[in-house]
Formats: sequence, structure tokens, C-alpha cells
Amino acid sequence: MQQPVKIAVDAMSGDGGFGVAVDAAIHALERNPGLSVVLVGDAAALQAALASAVSAPAVRSRLAVHPASEVVTMEDAPAQALRHKKDSSMRIAVDLVAEHAADACVSAGNTGALMATAKFVLKMLPGVERPAIVTALPAISGATHVLDLGANAECTAEQLLQFAAMGSALVTALQGIEQPRVALLNIGQEAIKGNAVVKHAAELIQASPLNFVGYVEGDSLFLHPVDVVVCDGFVGNVGLKVGEGVAQLIGTFMREEFMRSWSSRLVGLVARHILHRLAARIDPRVYNGATLIGLRGIVVKSHGSADAVAFGHAIEVAMHEVWQAVPQHIERLVAHSLQAAQPVSAAG
Amino acid sequence: MQQPVKIAVDAMSGDGGFGVAVDAAIHALERNPGLSVVLVGDAAALQAALASAVSAPAVRSRLAVHPASEVVTMEDAPAQALRHKKDSSMRIAVDLVAEHAADACVSAGNTGALMATAKFVLKMLPGVERPAIVTALPAISGATHVLDLGANAECTAEQLLQFAAMGSALVTALQGIEQPRVALLNIGQEAIKGNAVVKHAAELIQASPLNFVGYVEGDSLFLHPVDVVVCDGFVGNVGLKVGEGVAQLIGTFMREEFMRSWSSRLVGLVARHILHRLAARIDPRVYNGATLIGLRGIVVKSHGSADAVAFGHAIEVAMHEVWQAVPQHIERLVAHSLQAAQPVSAAG
Repeated sequence: MQQPVKIAVDAMSGDGGFGVAVDAAIHALERNPGLSVVLVGDAAALQAALASAVSAPAVRSRLAVHPASEVVTMEDAPAQALRHKKDSSMRIAVDLVAEHAADACVSAGNTGALMATAKFVLKMLPGVERPAIVTALPAISGATHVLDLGANAECTAEQLLQFAAMGSALVTALQGIEQPRVALLNIGQEAIKGNAVVKHAAELIQASPLNFVGYVEGDSLFLHPVDVVVCDGFVGNVGLKVGEGVAQLIGTFMREEFMRSWSSRLVGLVARHILHRLAARIDPRVYNGATLIGLRGIVVKSHGSADAVAFGHAIEVAMHEVWQAVPQHIERLVAHSLQAAQPVSAAG
Repeated sequence: MQQPVKIAVDAMSGDGGFGVAVDAAIHALERNPGLSVVLVGDAAALQAALASAVSAPAVRSRLAVHPASEVVTMEDAPAQALRHKKDSSMRIAVDLVAEHAADACVSAGNTGALMATAKFVLKMLPGVERPAIVTALPAISGATHVLDLGANAECTAEQLLQFAAMGSALVTALQGIEQPRVALLNIGQEAIKGNAVVKHAAELIQASPLNFVGYVEGDSLFLHPVDVVVCDGFVGNVGLKVGEGVAQLIGTFMREEFMRSWSSRLVGLVARHILHRLAARIDPRVYNGATLIGLRGIVVKSHGSADAVAFGHAIEVAMHEVWQAVPQHIERLVAHSLQAAQPVSAAG
């Protein structure tokens, strides 16, 4: 029996509208008997969508609707959304977590607004200045947790240390690894290894109780020599998007080669089961759902353009983090790492 | 008939030693009747390698050896290499370009040392503060020239403008495109679009005569909506390595899927021609050879671990740049772009 978990889903903010959120919730509920979902948004529209989409009472009984009259758009400035859209689906979903009416929330909306809202409503864990976005990237063996993937375009060395502590704690919470290997993302040009912030961050992390293994380069993310890779949000976001771009490029080339002639199409037909298995392994949708880490609560960001499959994965990411009591672990472990690191941090 | 071109090849600095350089030179000479190569390094060793490797007089007659008694290692600091290894294969290869004894040079050595040496020996073009590393990345259609890929871990907005001007000039010189589309690499998180340097660079490039189309995200590099993408060397190098890592990851997954069972191996056998064509298209070796741009001369950096095929491509990159008189074009076009941009640059 799964531990019961209730997830608040911002049903209105994704590019695909509430239809995607409804379908995603239904799929996730079908797969996970312990899960229940509160869909936050336009109550009439959501009830109508549910009435036509859900037939199984076992699923319907675990689905609720919570009304919200506004929607945060991709164009809304974070401060704008925070101050003037207090009845938005995003805000209400986060509020439900703060009020313990839900164990976690998921949104496919405006990242900046979600971050500002989550930070304001849920507050930060002690010692953490700002949330970071973290996700597990697939590697040749295992996976690498990378942060920050875009929440903070500019970071101080102290913030990179906080990211390192949070990433390490997350891996401990999720995978039970006692001393996850933590690395800083750096560049491979010998003479100019890193910028001033990265070099200072290396000193701070080295002096902390974290299991710091030094610098890694961009290709290491997918080779998994380490468990956690830390970088600022600009570098992390570019890296994430570059990875998606290369996967798309190779997928396109593959289709072109298998469509080149009648004989290659025939071979493609023979190989279709293998190609489908391969496509499933590199499908970005199964990696959807990044955590806003550092908050007193679980907030998962889905890709704005996520379809129901991808959005469903994001709901399950939130569910797993509730099961593993991620924020509680992080609070304890981060406090430990940062406390021990403080004297050096202050001197740095 | 090809225009005759003479390339100086630093034969000693790559991870694979002079054997790789010798084989690469022979392959490049066989493919290009107008090419001649000067191998720089341990004369006795190189002559011996040539004696055993080259039989065709048509190739041998276009191969020379120039002695150099030292080798710059990957551990040498740039200033160290510059001051204390004046008879290194790297230095002599660059010297040959400065003395017009060669039209261009190629090295697989220490990037920092190569940059410092090239900057000192060849000097910068007017208006350009530092060289950048640029290469063409494969895209779904065409290719995108990206710079800086790792020469400058920290950049000012003015330097990013210079990179934009140089990248634009390079694409004009190589591809004859009059007004290449130039973009700045940025992140997709709405609230926090870019850091201060990128935002300021956007203003500067906007005010220049360059065809600036705004920001692109990391996945755009492989979709080729623009001709030139500008970023600092830290971001560019991480992006490049991430791209290599994802390509490796997908290659590994593909092999695993085709090796999973006897039946899938059989399918792999049937599909082997298609898979080989695909592998050739995503082979990083055919993209080897990045240009140190901004110098009064052509210097091409090969990957340190390049094999003979990859190193041969780097030699051909240098050859093409000689044919297109790249530095002359860049000098003229960059002066134009930067002069026009200056008033704003000074006010910024």
C-alpha cells in the first residue's frame, strides 16, 4: 500500500491549458492508488472536463477541484503576479501547500512567478537565500542531479555552496546515499579554469562537510561520475536546453536516415521496436518535473509545453518527494553542511 | 585547381603524439592537391615517421619538417609556455605564420598557451581585445557558428559585441552571407532573462550595424534559426561539452538497444548501413577544428584527444579559412561594425 499523498495541481498555467492538467492527473491517479489530486483553477471548466473524462469511480473519488479565478501568464512579472493575482491557480496551489491542505504542488506556469510566489508563501529553509531548480538528468549509468537549472541567472559563491548542500541532501533523501559525490561544473580550457565565483565556491564547498570531488566538465553530466553537479542558473539552463537540442537533432537525423529510401524505410519497419525503445529512453517527457529546492514545502515545475504524459511525470516527481520527506531531510542536512562551512564562508 | 595553401602543423602537442599529426597531414594532403604541410617538432622522429608512412611522391613532395626542440604540455601555464618555451612546436608553428612562411597553423595543444602565444606573436586585429574560439555546430538545417567556446571564462559586454562582430564577419567570409543573423545566447526563464552583462551586450549589439535578432536559448544552436550565436567562454564551453555528452549518451543507448538480444542484434546487422551513416553525421570528429578568431593570422585549435581523422579535419578548416582570406575579411568588417557601435559603447 502506498502512503497517501495529496498533490495540488495548478491546472491553468501550462501552454496546453487545463485539458493537459486534467489528463495528466487522471493518468497519475490510475498509476498510483495512494495518490489524490486537487485541480486548482476554473471550477466550472474543470468539473465539466472531469465529467467527460473520468469514468472510473476509483479515480474520481481521489480528484477534487479547488476554484481559482485568475491565471498567471508567461508575460506577468513575478512581483506583478505575486501582488495582483492572489486568486490565481498558481498562488492557490502554493497556498494549499502552506496550509497543509496539500502535501506538494505542481505548476507548468511562469517560472519566475512560481519562484517568487513559492518563496513568499512557503518561505526559505534556514541558511538558504534563494530556491534553485534541480532535476535528475539521465546518464549512461544512473542519473546526475544538476542545479541550478535556471532560477538564478547570477549567483554568489555562497549561493553555489547552498546549492551544493541542497543537492547533496536531495540525493541522500531520494536515494539513501550517505555522502553523495558533489562537483562544480567548470570548463576544460586549462589556462582559464573557471571564473572567480566558481573558484571561490570550490574553496567554500571544499571546506564544508560535503563530499566534494572537484570540478567536472559539461559532458560529465551524462557519464555520472558524480551524484550532484552545481552551477549557476544561466549555465545550467543553457546546458539543459543544449542537451534537449542535441537530442532533437539526433532524432531528426535518425528519422532522415531511416526515411532516405524505400529500402531504408523497410529496415526502419523491421527495427521499429528497437527504435521505439530507444525513443522512450531519450524522451524528454519522462524527465519532466524539476523541483524548486530550498523551500519549506515541495513545489515542482513542469515544462510549460508539457503534454499529459510529461505533466503526469511531474506530478509523480512531487509524489516521490512527499514520500521521501524531502524538505525535512534537506532542512536537517543543509543546516549541518552550512553550519560547518560558515567560518570559511565568512572569511571568504 | 585549388589555390596553393601551406599549413604549419604543431605535430607534438596533441594527446596522441606526432603519429596522429603525421597521419592527419598525409590524409589531408591526399584529399587536397593544393595543400602543403610543414610538420613542426622533433625533426628526427618526424622524418623517421614520414619515411615509413609516406610512399606516394605526390604527397611526400608537399610535406616538410621544421625542427622544434620543446613541447608545451597541458600543465604549462600560458605565461610559462610563452616565456620559457620559445622553441616549442606550438610557438614555432605560430611563428611560421607570423613570418609568412605558412598561411595558417593548427595545434592540438594547451588552449590557454596557444591563445597566449598566438596573441603575443600574431597580435590582435584592431578593436578586438581578446581572441575567441569559434566553430560551426551542426544544426537540423545548416550550421550555427558559436563563440566564445572557452577562451574567455569572463567577458564584458564590449567583448561580447566584439565576438558578435567577428562571428558575423566569419560567416560572411566563409559563406558569402551579407548580413548574417546574430543572436545572444540567453536563458528561458521568463522573470530573469539574462544577467547584467548579457543585457548590456544586447544594447550594444542592437546599436551596431550587425543584423541582431535578439536572444536565443540553448536548443536554438541546433535548429539554426540564426547564423551566429554569441556567449561568454564559460557558457559556450559548457554547452559544447554538454552537447558532446548527450551525443555520447544517445550513442550508448542506441548500442545497448541493438545489442539487447539476439534478435535485436540481427536487426542491427540489417540496419548497419543506416546506423553507420547516422554515426558519420553525428561523429564529433568531423566537427573538429575550432578557430582562434580575432588574430592577425589563422590559428586553428584541434581537440587535444583528436585522432588522425579529426586532426585532418582541423587542417582542412585552416585551409578553407586561408582560401576565404578570413582574417582580412574580419579586419575590414569588424572595424566597420565596431566603429559604428562605438558611440553607444562608450555611453553604455
